[in-house]
Amino acid sequence: MSFKTNATIAEFGGKLLKLTHDSSVTKTPMNVNLYIPPATTSKIPVVMYLSGLTCTPDNASEKSFFQYWASKYGFAMVFPDTSPRGADIAGENESYDFGTGAGFYVDATQEPWSVNYNMYKYVHGELIDKLTEAYPELDFSNISITGHSMGGMGALVGYIRQPRNYKTVSAFAPIANPSVVPWGEKCFGGYLGEDKSTWAKYDPTELIKDYKGDDSSSILIHQGLNDNFYEKELKPQNFVDAAKNYKGGVDLRLVDGYDHSYFFISSFVEDHAKHHAKYLGLKL
Amino acid sequence: MSFKTNATIAEFGGKLLKLTHDSSVTKTPMNVNLYIPPATTSKIPVVMYLSGLTCTPDNASEKSFFQYWASKYGFAMVFPDTSPRGADIAGENESYDFGTGAGFYVDATQEPWSVNYNMYKYVHGELIDKLTEAYPELDFSNISITGHSMGGMGALVGYIRQPRNYKTVSAFAPIANPSVVPWGEKCFGGYLGEDKSTWAKYDPTELIKDYKGDDSSSILIHQGLNDNFYEKELKPQNFVDAAKNYKGGVDLRLVDGYDHSYFFISSFVEDHAKHHAKYLGLKL
Repeated sequence: MSFKTNATIAEFGGKLLKLTHDSSVTKTPMNVNLYIPPATTSKIPVVMYLSGLTCTPDNASEKSFFQYWASKYGFAMVFPDTSPRGADIAGENESYDFGTGAGFYVDATQEPWSVNYNMYKYVHGELIDKLTEAYPELDFSNISITGHSMGGMGALVGYIRQPRNYKTVSAFAPIANPSVVPWGEKCFGGYLGEDKSTWAKYDPTELIKDYKGDDSSSILIHQGLNDNFYEKELKPQNFVDAAKNYKGGVDLRLVDGYDHSYFFISSFVEDHAKHHAKYLGLKL
Repeated sequence: MSFKTNATIAEFGGKLLKLTHDSSVTKTPMNVNLYIPPATTSKIPVVMYLSGLTCTPDNASEKSFFQYWASKYGFAMVFPDTSPRGADIAGENESYDFGTGAGFYVDATQEPWSVNYNMYKYVHGELIDKLTEAYPELDFSNISITGHSMGGMGALVGYIRQPRNYKTVSAFAPIANPSVVPWGEKCFGGYLGEDKSTWAKYDPTELIKDYKGDDSSSILIHQGLNDNFYEKELKPQNFVDAAKNYKGGVDLRLVDGYDHSYFFISSFVEDHAKHHAKYLGLKL
């Protein structure tokens, strides 16, 4: 088996699997959590959830409550890690926003990061390929994507570039225009180098301007107005402005009083679950 | 003000308050979390949630998912700590199941614990008195109680002894007969002494035999069958057997595959929320 099952946990009538596998893309063992809802008669659609800075697969599994809705509507969920761990690169563990826990879902081009830090290829490629093989009851051809903060950015990038045929996307407080904010400048500079023309393919605001795919699905984004990172790091309005030709529209919901935490995520996960269920063809 | 507000966090349309206050009962500062649902026209009923071994007020606040239902049905929630912290008693921090994080919701009679470890008087007495004064929008005369493991025990004891007029009780994997299990023997021995006749007033199975109060409310208990502590430490069937004269009945639901974790709690919190809402007179 390509996956080692470290734990099988009953939850909301389904099961949460804590898995580890060896990745040829990151050249490290990778942890991933997989929620499989109660058995249904048909093949089970999948929502990919990309987490934010510092998170492991466990944080969202324990605190987002997405699985309650996954069970109710009948979709599986994949919670990947946010970076390789234990690559043993000098400087990897020096800050919370670069290196370990901060892979930014890009394929690094700069040494020494390019050896292991290939989270774009890992998440959208190898991980889904391996899960498809190991869990035939899941329908990875009927998949959508969401995420929080750095993971919201990764979800938007994945949706717009379509390495998989993601049916829709949503995001919680995404880093919507990473090229122009400190978090993005630090990580893109480190992983991709100082030539900013190479950054655009990981910047949702740049990518959406040239989007040529199916634009019938609405893009749902929640942003808390009491989020300390809103003005400095996230800039969802830049994405909305850049997406003016996207027919499905960007449904940006600015919510008063909410911060950047899992309390914010769990408060609006019901809306996101309904959004994904709809575009995955599930009954609400 | 008797409470210092360390954080006010928007959640599910209401707010989670992280509070600290000085307790004259434990003679230490005490942390408590309070969830207040979105404003309604009438006074807001309250559910007290007592946590299990090692927990702070944050664990259940982050992982139980109870607040989703509190918001939906319109009850407040109180998440007390599980012991005094920083009492600085020799041996207090030597094990996970005695001392810090393991107050067992009893009033200790044995030195040196009796100075600070008075969690029964604290939770059912001082804490509610102070909250009543500080939060007049909450109706502490319309209150019920629940909890997990050690806290399930504390909830059952509180309901049966009625230091407050708790309208109903429910429990997740409670230590239902502490006098006859290792956890209870260790803590009751340490806090109450070796005379086992003094233990009965904190043992739900002993207490329910002589219950003289209103027994119209059903008692709801969930117990996972994949819970490592079920046979050795919890023994809910002993409680059911002892409660045969309790008219409302004990609704013990043994659930296949579930463990002792917050994944178990969050999976069944919907049932418990509905149970409490009903007996608190709320509309479902």
